[in-house]
Amino acid sequence: MKVAIQGEAGSFSHEAAKRMVKGCTVVPCSHSVEVFDRLKRGSAGAAVIPIENSLAGSVAEHFDLLLARNVSIQQEYRLRIVHNLIAAPGVKMSDIRHVFSHPVALDQCRDFFRAHRKIKAMPFYDTAGSVKHVIESGLPDAAGIAGRPAASVYGGRILEAGIEDDKQNFTRFFLIRKGRRVVPGANKTSIAFRVKNIPGALFRALSVFALRDISLTKIESRPIRGRPWEYAFFADLLCGDDKTARNALRHLAETASLVKVLGIYRAA
Amino acid sequence: MKVAIQGEAGSFSHEAAKRMVKGCTVVPCSHSVEVFDRLKRGSAGAAVIPIENSLAGSVAEHFDLLLARNVSIQQEYRLRIVHNLIAAPGVKMSDIRHVFSHPVALDQCRDFFRAHRKIKAMPFYDTAGSVKHVIESGLPDAAGIAGRPAASVYGGRILEAGIEDDKQNFTRFFLIRKGRRVVPGANKTSIAFRVKNIPGALFRALSVFALRDISLTKIESRPIRGRPWEYAFFADLLCGDDKTARNALRHLAETASLVKVLGIYRAA
Repeated sequence: MKVAIQGEAGSFSHEAAKRMVKGCTVVPCSHSVEVFDRLKRGSAGAAVIPIENSLAGSVAEHFDLLLARNVSIQQEYRLRIVHNLIAAPGVKMSDIRHVFSHPVALDQCRDFFRAHRKIKAMPFYDTAGSVKHVIESGLPDAAGIAGRPAASVYGGRILEAGIEDDKQNFTRFFLIRKGRRVVPGANKTSIAFRVKNIPGALFRALSVFALRDISLTKIESRPIRGRPWEYAFFADLLCGDDKTARNALRHLAETASLVKVLGIYRAA
Repeated sequence: MKVAIQGEAGSFSHEAAKRMVKGCTVVPCSHSVEVFDRLKRGSAGAAVIPIENSLAGSVAEHFDLLLARNVSIQQEYRLRIVHNLIAAPGVKMSDIRHVFSHPVALDQCRDFFRAHRKIKAMPFYDTAGSVKHVIESGLPDAAGIAGRPAASVYGGRILEAGIEDDKQNFTRFFLIRKGRRVVPGANKTSIAFRVKNIPGALFRALSVFALRDISLTKIESRPIRGRPWEYAFFADLLCGDDKTARNALRHLAETASLVKVLGIYRAA
């Protein structure tokens, strides 16, 4: 199966895709919109997208696209983010003077730079892309910071593994497919809904779950593009596709101006 | 007054600080933690921090720091994000072959790059930093993309103004100060709270506002660092420091395991 991702080969999305769909072929795309376009056209059978990171927060663009497009979440996965120092074969730790990576990754490896004062942090577009850059350019005094797959994809060597400061660094990924499909044995539901801008509107919306003992594990409001002061809510519910859940969603549709089920899937 | 910001001089935070505190001296800091440390030490009297962007979403790190540190929100401001092409004096539009900026800014100016096929987008650490770079290096064929103040701070010339694709691009900033201070005439309250991981816990928490007709304009859950499966909620309420609001917060404290008022201020 072809699985579209946003970013370079060897990125964390690549790593998540390989773990979620055994033996898949990963199709790198420059922009998230292209990932969703590929699903629509059918040039990819699925896509794997990051949705939130435990340190950096939610990927707003992906919430907006899940709401706008005809896709559904099939699976979730939590990937522990491990940063590695990767250089071209033959380059030694003592040779390194410049280390390239995405600014967020550089910032998550501050202890490494404090311990190696001679090494300069060089901001780059992408984590895996930084490894591609140092290896394809044959830089003798440089390395990139990226996930383990970047080393094998670009033929690099890991000089130091696990150089991130905070080990509680997880990214949650969704596997999505075109159309609406409910996964058998599903026990988690992601929804988006809109309520009128009046006091108590959200409270009334949440009552449909509270009255049925359905737990909410996440909720987030997002401003709606082009409609200032209107908000969409994104929520995760601990329920599958049973009668109680269907009743709750029907009840929600009575008070909300829009309800969209983004996916009914198995919890990670 | 000295106002700390995260990022380079000439950044959007710089622009917001200048608009929020007339005549202030802006103190650029490399990291957000340093901004909060300066408030604590008293080496800055206030700080201006971005909290959410209408396209990119919330700045999670700033929510976490507002919760952890002894500061309070004094003011909010919505800045329209306008991207400008800025080069060294004497450099003409027809000379430009490379344009540097932060990846998010480059991505928000795709129409510009489509219209100028000979110009290559070059990812850089920071928007204002990219202008500093092209001007201090005296690059004859390059420009940076940044807000208007970057041109005056680094002595650059704006070759093209307003090159962003989407004009509905706003960033919301907070002015924060050390300690707890309620602004006179305040009509908006930001809070953080934690509830037990049981069904209906959030519903019960929100009831304290719904029962008193207090509107919620934003809500967001954030995983708590080092405590998997526990969440903190951040909410904005349309109320000031009156009796009803105080009753609601007291009522919330009965069901929530933590309630923190992040600030009581005037709505933008």
